[in-house]
Amino acid sequence: YIVEEVMEGFDRNKLETLLKQRFFYDQSFAIYGGVQGLYDFGPMGCAVKANLLQEWRNFFVLEEQMLEMDCSMLTPEPVLKASGHVERFADYKVKDLKTGECFRADHVVKQFLEKLEADPKTPQDRRDEARRILNSLDNLDGAGLQEVIVKFGIKSPQSGNEISEPQQFNLMFQVSIGPAGNIKGYLRPETAQGIFVNFKRLLEFNQGRLPFAAAQIGNSFRNEISPRAGLLRVREFTMAEIEHFLDPADKSHPKFASVAGLSLPLYSAKDQMAGLDATEKPLGEAVSAGVIANQTLAYFMARIFLFMVRCGVDRQRLRFRQHLSNEMAHYACDCWDAECLTSYGWIECVGCADRSAYDLTQHSKACGAQLVAEKMLAEPQVVVANEAVINKGVVGRTFKADAVHVTQYLSSLEEADLNSLATELESLGSASREIGGSERKLTPDMVSVRRTERTVHRLEFVPSVIEPSFGIGRIMYVIFEHSFRAREGDEARTYLSLPPVIAPYKCSVLQLSNNPKLREMATAMSQALTQAGLSHRIDDSSVSIGKRYARTDQIAIPYGVTIDFDSINKTPATATLRERDSMRQVRVEVEKIPGIVQQLVQERLTWAQVMEAYPVFEQQETIKDTDGN
Amino acid sequence: YIVEEVMEGFDRNKLETLLKQRFFYDQSFAIYGGVQGLYDFGPMGCAVKANLLQEWRNFFVLEEQMLEMDCSMLTPEPVLKASGHVERFADYKVKDLKTGECFRADHVVKQFLEKLEADPKTPQDRRDEARRILNSLDNLDGAGLQEVIVKFGIKSPQSGNEISEPQQFNLMFQVSIGPAGNIKGYLRPETAQGIFVNFKRLLEFNQGRLPFAAAQIGNSFRNEISPRAGLLRVREFTMAEIEHFLDPADKSHPKFASVAGLSLPLYSAKDQMAGLDATEKPLGEAVSAGVIANQTLAYFMARIFLFMVRCGVDRQRLRFRQHLSNEMAHYACDCWDAECLTSYGWIECVGCADRSAYDLTQHSKACGAQLVAEKMLAEPQVVVANEAVINKGVVGRTFKADAVHVTQYLSSLEEADLNSLATELESLGSASREIGGSERKLTPDMVSVRRTERTVHRLEFVPSVIEPSFGIGRIMYVIFEHSFRAREGDEARTYLSLPPVIAPYKCSVLQLSNNPKLREMATAMSQALTQAGLSHRIDDSSVSIGKRYARTDQIAIPYGVTIDFDSINKTPATATLRERDSMRQVRVEVEKIPGIVQQLVQERLTWAQVMEAYPVFEQQETIKDTDGN
Repeated sequence: YIVEEVMEGFDRNKLETLLKQRFFYDQSFAIYGGVQGLYDFGPMGCAVKANLLQEWRNFFVLEEQMLEMDCSMLTPEPVLKASGHVERFADYKVKDLKTGECFRADHVVKQFLEKLEADPKTPQDRRDEARRILNSLDNLDGAGLQEVIVKFGIKSPQSGNEISEPQQFNLMFQVSIGPAGNIKGYLRPETAQGIFVNFKRLLEFNQGRLPFAAAQIGNSFRNEISPRAGLLRVREFTMAEIEHFLDPADKSHPKFASVAGLSLPLYSAKDQMAGLDATEKPLGEAVSAGVIANQTLAYFMARIFLFMVRCGVDRQRLRFRQHLSNEMAHYACDCWDAECLTSYGWIECVGCADRSAYDLTQHSKACGAQLVAEKMLAEPQVVVANEAVINKGVVGRTFKADAVHVTQYLSSLEEADLNSLATELESLGSASREIGGSERKLTPDMVSVRRTERTVHRLEFVPSVIEPSFGIGRIMYVIFEHSFRAREGDEARTYLSLPPVIAPYKCSVLQLSNNPKLREMATAMSQALTQAGLSHRIDDSSVSIGKRYARTDQIAIPYGVTIDFDSINKTPATATLRERDSMRQVRVEVEKIPGIVQQLVQERLTWAQVMEAYPVFEQQETIKDTDGN
Repeated sequence: YIVEEVMEGFDRNKLETLLKQRFFYDQSFAIYGGVQGLYDFGPMGCAVKANLLQEWRNFFVLEEQMLEMDCSMLTPEPVLKASGHVERFADYKVKDLKTGECFRADHVVKQFLEKLEADPKTPQDRRDEARRILNSLDNLDGAGLQEVIVKFGIKSPQSGNEISEPQQFNLMFQVSIGPAGNIKGYLRPETAQGIFVNFKRLLEFNQGRLPFAAAQIGNSFRNEISPRAGLLRVREFTMAEIEHFLDPADKSHPKFASVAGLSLPLYSAKDQMAGLDATEKPLGEAVSAGVIANQTLAYFMARIFLFMVRCGVDRQRLRFRQHLSNEMAHYACDCWDAECLTSYGWIECVGCADRSAYDLTQHSKACGAQLVAEKMLAEPQVVVANEAVINKGVVGRTFKADAVHVTQYLSSLEEADLNSLATELESLGSASREIGGSERKLTPDMVSVRRTERTVHRLEFVPSVIEPSFGIGRIMYVIFEHSFRAREGDEARTYLSLPPVIAPYKCSVLQLSNNPKLREMATAMSQALTQAGLSHRIDDSSVSIGKRYARTDQIAIPYGVTIDFDSINKTPATATLRERDSMRQVRVEVEKIPGIVQQLVQERLTWAQVMEAYPVFEQQETIKDTDGN
């Protein structure tokens, strides 16, 4: 796909106006001038978010019996040192030397070079050079970026002023914990670490068995240098992460067969390097061909795809792109991003990474805890080990006060060193080693090497981790873009075609006029809908019914009940039921409506079935456009 | 109640062991030594929390059609200056002068004086003095606390070392936002401010009408000086807050009649001062008698009570205590805390405050936004106003270059000043005013005061706010304490009697042995339960069925299905269904079980009804205690 093609006729301003006016979200603290990169979700955005998270819980946690966690956001420094974030979770910033404004160095360079490349006046050789640099921009460090800035004379993109040299800027928010100010910490930049540091307890809870998955929904924080693009690059955001722990020797998945036939648009690293496009490929084939590293990774890619489509992402604008080696995070050994095409281009919404044993190994090293699992061996194994047998008497007599150093040295020797010591003692009759600052001569009467054999039935190992990581705000924005529509012939009448499972309200209740009897019946309908657990909105304002339909369409309410005069004058009482996307209506007995809407929302009934079962109601469509008040 | 009486036989250690072992929650970053006041919820705690919040949403947001919000935690300083938190959200700390350890000054003083008072060797006059100070401890500022510390020679409670003078310590975590480090902010100490700063948009969303309520679930942060008592005083915690905006002239509530007859244990400020106990009183009476300030406050107290009891708080250990004037927060004009009796004493779990117009007024002042609502007047009102009519010609000729100051001065005069000016001009023939640094003589030819009349149909006003604010972690801890039980005759066999709506899993699936046919049927049962939307846990470990029942009781699973040999050998296939609290079992057709459990969980069926409808199964109870593996 080409961005321009898919986006033809799409007007981002119109969407943003709708989202702001109907309070899906807005900049936080707007009455105080706002803070870049911080957003508040209003009632509509909050409901969409809650529905999306609930669906995520059902689709992943409940379905796969994952162990859900809820961990602290405040995180002490040692944890994030071990994970590599203190050292490496940084971007380069440049500062406008006059205004003090900061920009991401790579963004400034990219923007400049892309403009240069696109300018027809640029000589061909310079254009080629710009392209070469753009292709390997991810590989440049601060010095590399500075070289480009100097070479091309790049200035501040806003003011044209000189800019500083690129400086590394850690993206974590620093926080001091406790009254004495001596516990240094950060707001977590991802939720994953909370799960890793609890691995032992989780394994225990799972009765020691692998594989199992833990999951967490929660907020993370990144002090972005220059937040932009609405919900796509923000400083505080909700993530939903899964850490699936498994045996590195067996990354198969018991349910893989159920998704092996599913074709996903895959954009492999190889195809990217070759300048090819993404191609649809059945997952079974992709795993066999080694395009995707293992079954478990592929299984989760399938689940991510199904979840995204279910929640309203357009499957035509969704692909899985494999990370190139130069962009892979420091912990990953294979990684595929679920990317969605938007008016901002292809946007990463879900990362699906094989983090191997990186995190558990790092935390084990840092805090000394044994973060390992055990497995029964198919057959018992004999483990051979060497052991130093020290003759303390001889060592003591020979080295006197220094004997203790020699004993310690010999006790701490590892397998390989013991082997070479044994060989030397045997072949040369002695061995010379620097111990405690002096050369010491060791002889066979001081130490011998004993070979031991042990039969083991269980093997300890550090589990690997497969991590699907969802950016909830980004997914929400993509769903909004992909479900944004205008009525044919009336471009100003925009609406959101969200799937019922995600829509903020499931149903609207309108009354044709302010007549008290209509109002009474509308109130009863509202109570019946609450009883049925259906969130709904009553719009009893005095604007025309047509305007009220348009308003409920804007907040994506999939079904609408209208109480009219037939509802109160005829027996049995009926009302009209309207579907948002088709704007078609049927007339249904009032009592049946909550049950029908419930079945529609739960996808146990289709609108087509409702249209067949009940008399179509045409009249209201006329009222819609002419009935003022 | 007396703490000792209610807590008789309660062993907090046993409860804490259960909660830790079955991973309800544990200290965060425990493998790194942990951080005080930070907790992670494991799978069981996380499920309880998610259930509690879901129930809160249903009970408050859905039922009352509240507008739910999801606002940023990072908050710029001006917002929290306006709310009063920068200046006043602080405790006094004292530092151990040798170890540097910090304590809350009031806690140190309280602990010391209580010990002194309880010591029989303390002379009576000194004992009386201790009591006097204890009674007014909340009124003491830093200097007052220091006076007590010096007078009694109070030392560090841990080491006995000298302590520093009390210093004010703001409890908010400070954070620097943005790459330039020039946006000073804090992690929010409550979620409420996010709602207040969005008031205008919310009112607009509600089509300009009052009353309406906004709600928010989210995390807040307080850098407690010395966190303690587990989940009760922590540095990061989840709150659920409601801000109900209403006309200060009308605090009635349309649904009040539905709760007026409900009697709640009320502990009014007056009764506290008089040394009386809490008394049960119907809410209607309490409002009429002026004990509770208004209907809306009382309505929410009723809803809080019903919610708490529904979620597992013991109604015998729940009371509403009114704040005394010296403990009322800076914003509140009446406040009742829902307090629960625990082994730590009476603990505040929900605050229910009338914040009056404080917050909206403060934010209006600070940022200039008009945070007001309008109402139609029952009858149009005539508003009289005075206006200065300036003769610019005379003013210009008289004051020349300074005329502009005089004109500005006259235009900016407010009602009262205009009135006194008019009076002076009329009675004295002139008036003298300091304008632009000089005395100026004003005469009737320069300015006259005109009286204007305007008929208004709508009135602008700043709404009041009623705020119920729930501490989710505290409520969870209380529920755990109140539902902790031991089996009669087997005190070591402890369990949690959580209501099904709150229990982490709704059902367990056990198989009597490892027989593959039993396993197959257990798997099918698990799938059927997932289909019915019932979270459940399969325990197919090889320990005895009795031990597995005990284990499922510990994690509060209310119902358990056991597949035994009758399940596979007889037609129709049946299994046993067990209820946690009574440990009674019935035998039911396998196909019916998911539906029955669903009805039990949704409270559409009682266990007594199930016992009547299906044959009681006695045999398993024997197996439970003898069947090893």
